[in-house]
Amino acid sequence: MDKGCYKQSEAEERISLMRTNMPPKHGIPGGIHIKELVATLLKSYEEIEATIKVDSVYQLNRSLLIEIIGKLRRLIFPGYFVKKYITKSFIEYQTGELVEEIFFDLTKQIAIALCHRKDGSPCHDEALGEAEKLVYTFLSKLSLIRSYLAMDVDAAFDGDPAAYSKDEIISSYPGIYAIMIYRLAHELYLLDIPLIPRIMTEYAHNITGIDIHPGATIGRHFFIDHGTGIVIGETTVIGNNVKIYQGVTLGGLSTRGGQALSGVKRHPTIEDGVTIYSGASILGGATVIGQGVVIGSNAFVTKSVPAQTRVSVKNPELQMHESVSKNAGHLELDQTEFWDWVI
Amino acid sequence: MDKGCYKQSEAEERISLMRTNMPPKHGIPGGIHIKELVATLLKSYEEIEATIKVDSVYQLNRSLLIEIIGKLRRLIFPGYFVKKYITKSFIEYQTGELVEEIFFDLTKQIAIALCHRKDGSPCHDEALGEAEKLVYTFLSKLSLIRSYLAMDVDAAFDGDPAAYSKDEIISSYPGIYAIMIYRLAHELYLLDIPLIPRIMTEYAHNITGIDIHPGATIGRHFFIDHGTGIVIGETTVIGNNVKIYQGVTLGGLSTRGGQALSGVKRHPTIEDGVTIYSGASILGGATVIGQGVVIGSNAFVTKSVPAQTRVSVKNPELQMHESVSKNAGHLELDQTEFWDWVI
Amino acid sequence: MDKGCYKQSEAEERISLMRTNMPPKHGIPGGIHIKELVATLLKSYEEIEATIKVDSVYQLNRSLLIEIIGKLRRLIFPGYFVKKYITKSFIEYQTGELVEEIFFDLTKQIAIALCHRKDGSPCHDEALGEAEKLVYTFLSKLSLIRSYLAMDVDAAFDGDPAAYSKDEIISSYPGIYAIMIYRLAHELYLLDIPLIPRIMTEYAHNITGIDIHPGATIGRHFFIDHGTGIVIGETTVIGNNVKIYQGVTLGGLSTRGGQALSGVKRHPTIEDGVTIYSGASILGGATVIGQGVVIGSNAFVTKSVPAQTRVSVKNPELQMHESVSKNAGHLELDQTEFWDWVI
Repeated sequence: MDKGCYKQSEAEERISLMRTNMPPKHGIPGGIHIKELVATLLKSYEEIEATIKVDSVYQLNRSLLIEIIGKLRRLIFPGYFVKKYITKSFIEYQTGELVEEIFFDLTKQIAIALCHRKDGSPCHDEALGEAEKLVYTFLSKLSLIRSYLAMDVDAAFDGDPAAYSKDEIISSYPGIYAIMIYRLAHELYLLDIPLIPRIMTEYAHNITGIDIHPGATIGRHFFIDHGTGIVIGETTVIGNNVKIYQGVTLGGLSTRGGQALSGVKRHPTIEDGVTIYSGASILGGATVIGQGVVIGSNAFVTKSVPAQTRVSVKNPELQMHESVSKNAGHLELDQTEFWDWVI
Repeated sequence: MDKGCYKQSEAEERISLMRTNMPPKHGIPGGIHIKELVATLLKSYEEIEATIKVDSVYQLNRSLLIEIIGKLRRLIFPGYFVKKYITKSFIEYQTGELVEEIFFDLTKQIAIALCHRKDGSPCHDEALGEAEKLVYTFLSKLSLIRSYLAMDVDAAFDGDPAAYSKDEIISSYPGIYAIMIYRLAHELYLLDIPLIPRIMTEYAHNITGIDIHPGATIGRHFFIDHGTGIVIGETTVIGNNVKIYQGVTLGGLSTRGGQALSGVKRHPTIEDGVTIYSGASILGGATVIGQGVVIGSNAFVTKSVPAQTRVSVKNPELQMHESVSKNAGHLELDQTEFWDWVI
Repeated sequence: MDKGCYKQSEAEERISLMRTNMPPKHGIPGGIHIKELVATLLKSYEEIEATIKVDSVYQLNRSLLIEIIGKLRRLIFPGYFVKKYITKSFIEYQTGELVEEIFFDLTKQIAIALCHRKDGSPCHDEALGEAEKLVYTFLSKLSLIRSYLAMDVDAAFDGDPAAYSKDEIISSYPGIYAIMIYRLAHELYLLDIPLIPRIMTEYAHNITGIDIHPGATIGRHFFIDHGTGIVIGETTVIGNNVKIYQGVTLGGLSTRGGQALSGVKRHPTIEDGVTIYSGASILGGATVIGQGVVIGSNAFVTKSVPAQTRVSVKNPELQMHESVSKNAGHLELDQTEFWDWVI
C-alpha cells in the first residue's frame, strides 16, 4: 500500500521529522486557529446543556465501577481471577482486603448515584450514611449470590456437551459472566439505587453480547449457551432450571407508549424448567410460558403456553435449485436474481 | 480439578521452582531451538509479504486512535467521562487542552492514513499540511455532531420505557456509543480519509455488536435499542426520526460481484419516521422504505414500501405438542426427533 | 439531574469532604461490621467449594494469555500492531524477542493447564518438560498459520465490496481477528492442551461476537463478513473457500444428552466453496452441505444438501396495511393490536 515515491531512507527521515519536529504545543501552525475551535465548542456547551455535566459533583466513575465488578468476581470465585494463588492461611486477609476496598469505593459511587433519584429525596446530608447501609446490605447478599452462581455453573456443565470442566465454564463462558453481573446488579436494583445497576449490566452486554436488564427476576440454575444477541427485558420473570440459547428475545409487544409504559409489566413470565432454543422471541407482559415447556428455534410467541408443551415452528419450506454448471473449477451461478441470497 | 498426586507443600515448592528457576533468557533448554523457530518465521515473512509491514513508516496506531475516540467523547459529553468533575471556571482550559491533544495526535495519524490513498496522490510532501487542514475541518464539525447526539439521546429517552434518565442513556446505552462513533467516523469518511473511519466504527462494533459502516448517511434523532447484531451497510441512507432494534440488517442483495460492486449503491434508503423492529432485513440499493413506515419483527424486505404503510410478517404457525409425561420431577420428553428444538 | 438543594459551593465542599475525609481504612464507621461480612464470606467458601480455587497452584492467568495472543498477532502480521515501525535490519531481533517471550510465558501456562487433564495423567514431574515440547510444536506451526491467514485476508478482500484494502481488513475486520485466534487455538486444541484453547476463542467471542469452538476444523480461504452472532460448534468440519455471514449457526440438533454427547460428532460438515448467508442455521452431525452449495438467508437446514445446489427459503409473506392517517406531522397508527411489531 505504501507509495514508492520516496526512497525508504528519505521517507524514514521525513516521518522522523514528523515525529520529533512537530511544532511545540504553544506554537500552533499558521492558519490553524485552535482558539476558534475551542470557542465554538464552548458556545455549543452553552447552547446544548442537556448533554453536559459542568459544575456537577455527582458524576459516577464508570471505570471505577468496572474495577469493583472485577473485585466482586474475585470474592465470588476466589482464586480464579488472580495473579498469585490463594492459600487457606491467607484467604481471610485477602477476602478482608477486597471487602474493604469494595466497601469504600462502592459507598462513594452509591452516594453519588443517590443524588440521581427521580423523587427528589435529599441526597447530600444523608447520602453517605445511607450509601454505607446499602453497601452493607448488598455485601451481606454475596454468599447467597455465590450459591446461586455455583448452581448456574452446574447448569452449564450439565447442559453443554462441549463443556470440558467447571473450571472452563468459570474461566471462559460468557453466559456465566453475564449472569454474575446481572445477579450483582439486580441486588443493587432491588435496593433502588439509580444508574449503577444498568451501567453494570450494559458493561456485561458490551463484553458478552447478552443484554439482561437488572430489573429482570431470574431463578436458580440458569443456563445461557453462546448467548450473543440475547435480550431479557426489565419486567421479565424467569423461574428455576431455565435454559436459553443465543439470539433469544424476552421482550415487549410494543414500545409505542414510550415513557408512559415505564414501570408496567411489559415482558413475559417463564416458569420452571423451560428451554428456549436459539432465535426464539417471547413477547408481552401477559405471556406466561408454563412449567417444563420447550420452545423451538426461531419461534415467535406472543400468547401464553400451557405447562409441559413442546412448541415448534413449522419452518419455511426450503427451495432447492440445481445449479446450471457442475463443471469443475469455479462455481458458476446462473444470473437470475435470487434475492434470498443476501448478506 | 487439581490432581491429589502431591502433598500441597511439595506442589507449592515445585510451582515456585517453575516460577523462579525458569532458565534465564539466554539459556534455552536443551533440545529446544528458538533460533530455528525464528528462522522459520523470517523465511515465512519473505515468502508471504502481503500481510507484513516491514520498512513501512505509514503504520497507523490503533490504540492511539482509540484514545482519541475517548477524548472526543469527553468533548461531546463534557463531564460525563472524567475522573474529576468539570467546573464552569475551568471548562475553557480543559476543553482547550483536549482539543490540542486531539489536534496533534490525529494530525499525525491522518498524515499516515493519506499515504494509503488508492489514487496515488502524493502523500509525504503535503501529507502533514493537508492533515492539519482536515483535522481543523473535522474539529470544527464537533458542535454540529454534539447537536445531533443531543437529539439522539432525546430519541432514546422518548422511545424506551426502560430508560431511567438521559444520564443513564449517555453513561450506558450501547446505541448512543455506536452512533457517536459513527457520526465522528462519518465526518472523516466525508473528508476522504482512508482507513481511520473504518477502524473507528469496527471498534464500536467490537464494543457494542452494532456494525455501522462509516459511509452510511444517517439523519437526526436516530434511536438504536439493544443493538446487538445490527448491520448498516456502506451506501445506506437513513432519514430523521428513525428507530431500529437489535438484529436488523440494512444490507445488500448479493455480494457475488465482490470488488466490482465497490462504490455502487447496494444498500437501502430509509425515509423519515420509519421504525424497524428486531431481526428484520431490508436489502438492496433500489429498496426505498417510505416515510412513516413500520416494519415488523423478522420481516425480510427486498422491494420498496410506500409511505405510511405497516409491514408485518405472517409468522410461521406454531405447532403445540402435549408432552407424554406430566408427572412431577424431571421433564420426560418423548424420543421422537423434533429437529426444530436445536441450539 | 442534580438536585438544586445546595448552593454549588456547599455541595463541592461536601463532596470534597466525602473524598478526603473518608474514615481511614482501619476506622470502620460505627454500625458497619466489615468483619461480619468477611466471616459470612469465609463460611460460604467452606460450604461451596466447587467455585473456589484455594490452595490450588494450577490457576491459569487469563490476562497473561490475552497478552500472549497480542504477541502472536504481532508475529503473524508483523508491523501492523506496533507502536514503532519495523525495519528489515531489525526484524530478526524483534521476532526473536517476541518468540522468546511467548515461549517462556506460554510454557508456564501450558504446564499449569496440563494439570487439568481428565485422564489423570501425571502433571507435575513432566509438566514443564512436556509443555516446552508442546510450545515448540505450536510455534513451529506459526508459518503455516500465517499462510492460512494470508489466504483468509485475500478471501475477505475478494468477497467484500466494502473492503478498501488488505490493510483495512487486517487492521479492523472482526472476522479476521476471530479466525486468527481460532487458528491459533485450534493448534493448541490438536495438541490436547486443556482450557487454554477455549479461553482464547471465548476471548475472541467477547471482542467480535463470533463464537468458534477451537475444536472445529476449518479449511483455507475462509471469509466471515460482519460476523456478530455466528456460532460454529465443536465438531463442525468446514472445507476451503467457504463464506459465512452474520448470525449463522453451525450447530447441534439437540443438547438433551448433555455431557453424554461429549465427543460425539454433533455439528455439520460444510464442503468446499459453500456460501451461507445471514441468519441461516445448519444443524446436526450427519448434515453434509455439498461442494459449491449456496444457502440463502434465514434458511433452517437439518438434512444434507447435494453439491452445486442453491437452497433458498420461501420467506413468510409480507402483509401490508395502509395506515389510517396520512396527514402531515406525527404518524398516527391505529390502535388495533399488531403483535408482530415488537422489540
